[in-house]
Amino acid sequence: MENFVFYNPVKILFGKGQIANITTEIPVDAKILITYGGGSIKANGVYDQVKSALVGRNVFEFGGIEPNPHFETLMKAVELIRKEGIDFLLAVGGGSVADGTKFIAAAVPFVGDPWDILANRAPVTAALPMGVVLTLPATGSEMNTNSVVTKWETQEKLFFASPFVFPKFSVLDPETTFSLPPRQIGNGIVDAFTHVMEQYLTYPVNAPLQDRMAESILKTLISEGPKTLANPTDYHARANLVWSATMALNGLIAVGVPQDWTTHMIGHELTALHGLDHAQTLAIVLPSTLTIRRDRKWQKLLQYADRVWEIVGGSEAERVNTAITKTRDFFESVGVPTHLSDYAIGSETIPAVIKNLEKHGMTALGENKDVNPQVVEQILALCA
Amino acid sequence: MENFVFYNPVKILFGKGQIANITTEIPVDAKILITYGGGSIKANGVYDQVKSALVGRNVFEFGGIEPNPHFETLMKAVELIRKEGIDFLLAVGGGSVADGTKFIAAAVPFVGDPWDILANRAPVTAALPMGVVLTLPATGSEMNTNSVVTKWETQEKLFFASPFVFPKFSVLDPETTFSLPPRQIGNGIVDAFTHVMEQYLTYPVNAPLQDRMAESILKTLISEGPKTLANPTDYHARANLVWSATMALNGLIAVGVPQDWTTHMIGHELTALHGLDHAQTLAIVLPSTLTIRRDRKWQKLLQYADRVWEIVGGSEAERVNTAITKTRDFFESVGVPTHLSDYAIGSETIPAVIKNLEKHGMTALGENKDVNPQVVEQILALCA
Repeated sequence: MENFVFYNPVKILFGKGQIANITTEIPVDAKILITYGGGSIKANGVYDQVKSALVGRNVFEFGGIEPNPHFETLMKAVELIRKEGIDFLLAVGGGSVADGTKFIAAAVPFVGDPWDILANRAPVTAALPMGVVLTLPATGSEMNTNSVVTKWETQEKLFFASPFVFPKFSVLDPETTFSLPPRQIGNGIVDAFTHVMEQYLTYPVNAPLQDRMAESILKTLISEGPKTLANPTDYHARANLVWSATMALNGLIAVGVPQDWTTHMIGHELTALHGLDHAQTLAIVLPSTLTIRRDRKWQKLLQYADRVWEIVGGSEAERVNTAITKTRDFFESVGVPTHLSDYAIGSETIPAVIKNLEKHGMTALGENKDVNPQVVEQILALCA
Repeated sequence: MENFVFYNPVKILFGKGQIANITTEIPVDAKILITYGGGSIKANGVYDQVKSALVGRNVFEFGGIEPNPHFETLMKAVELIRKEGIDFLLAVGGGSVADGTKFIAAAVPFVGDPWDILANRAPVTAALPMGVVLTLPATGSEMNTNSVVTKWETQEKLFFASPFVFPKFSVLDPETTFSLPPRQIGNGIVDAFTHVMEQYLTYPVNAPLQDRMAESILKTLISEGPKTLANPTDYHARANLVWSATMALNGLIAVGVPQDWTTHMIGHELTALHGLDHAQTLAIVLPSTLTIRRDRKWQKLLQYADRVWEIVGGSEAERVNTAITKTRDFFESVGVPTHLSDYAIGSETIPAVIKNLEKHGMTALGENKDVNPQVVEQILALCA
């Protein structure tokens, strides 16, 4: 096991009816901005629950945060906050709203052009306090420091992270997700699964507890994912998906182990170029990344085959191949196609993705920092 | 899954050489009190590492905190702190030093007799900030709100918990534990194992991720415990034990599931009456609790037999019995005897334990609150 620092102060309020409890989590005299997306929270009752919980409070609203939230949109919220003296943010929505609100929280006190936070890794030294009411299980943003923002003008999808943007609290009520379309649930399953894989499927460092915990999340997603797709109002199946998605990226399974974010980095460029859902890009790229990098990941692939998919027969190579095939099949089974051609994208995207990765300094990806543009080309060629 | 709130803001600094980093975790102008036990930290170099890290700081010391820390001793520290205006506590030691320091932290600002915190559950509304340098993997105190303190005068071992006594940080350097005697390592393995069991071995509530995470810790303890006993300076085996012990009681595997602290509550009374090590009492009581309550715990015992011990053959009853036997054998294999007679304690302890449990209001223990004095009698009779 490698040395590590672990710190995660997000308070999780999990379960039915927990939205009502946000009232005790937000300072009484706060000027609150509710941030949200396209308005589904008004259709599914979440907006009303939040407003009821905040009756008598000083509340502003900012809607219209897009999937893959746009820098340009978020800066409008920054302007509103500065003008009104707002001092607490409440993100109500999925990962995009949470990510976007984290950027807003960091941008408000930032001196200079906040785009530098994303483009030039300018250090974040303060942020407005924020809470989250999660309505879509997928990204884990509700319990981590990460944020991904897209500049619409240039189609750049960039990342920042800072402990200052840990939510003070996050409400996870599985019932708020019952009305989501199957496509978003399937995406959430793939997203959470891939988050675990990027922290688990590298090389062994004698960290059995971290391995087993990662495998625990994968096995839970495999058992509960199809259940919650088949019966969206099965409370327990949905609750298990929600908690799995949060645990997949709250830092815990990453402690003391190497990580490989190759699939995410390639995926971000595919979304920026083609507008694919984030999870669609992961479903496309992960099986190919595992295949192209299988020699480097051999021992963990064998462990994954054994413990997660319970593959017993055959040679090592057969077990590795079967495990990768089962991964692809699982993504397909939850409704997320795994080939570029399924999205009408041809091989012309390969040089475009590589060019953008180079522009963003992403030329040495992976747990060994040896996934260079040539390897990315091999991976993308296999995604056809 | 049941509704839950999860919150754990303890920053973990894990690995070789991490003690040096406490300097950035403690405010520069703090008046620091280092608390410790019997002086083993002076023999094993930990004391020197801590002092080196705090060169130039305003440091006081308070040694002599006993295993099962005594209220009477801790109150002497409270007096010193109030007199000197100390405002940061650094516990250097095992669970007893951490627990004792939590009590000190809560007692200093407490108005009235601090014994009320333990005896009458008086609410804790403030505490001094504290950090921990852990030198013994066992109790999980380094990453939770719990504290157990014994009043020497009356031999009462009592518990309190408060979010105000979460350590600000805990340093877990596995190398600081290399010099521990096998008895203490064996105790730590049993303690951590039992912590998991008390949160896991109840009844199913459709919380597969929590179940699998609990099983992950149990399996890691089973694989790493014997390794680290056989080779105390094997860094990875010891690191895996240390992290497992912390994860066993930091609240994570308890979210949304029922809990059964019967074994701990009975064990506390055995320690108070007979001076046994905490883990010795758990090793004695847990197998009997599982046996006497097996009808109530049937489904989880079968799951435990299957997943943790990989028992496949035989009837359900045979698998349950084998799993309990394997639990007992595991405790014995790490050097902790599991019968009262191994400690020269006879059946005369049974009425004494029951009397003390009644005195402390512990007459409805367990996940179903139906472990009454009569059931405790059956459990203890089986511990002979």
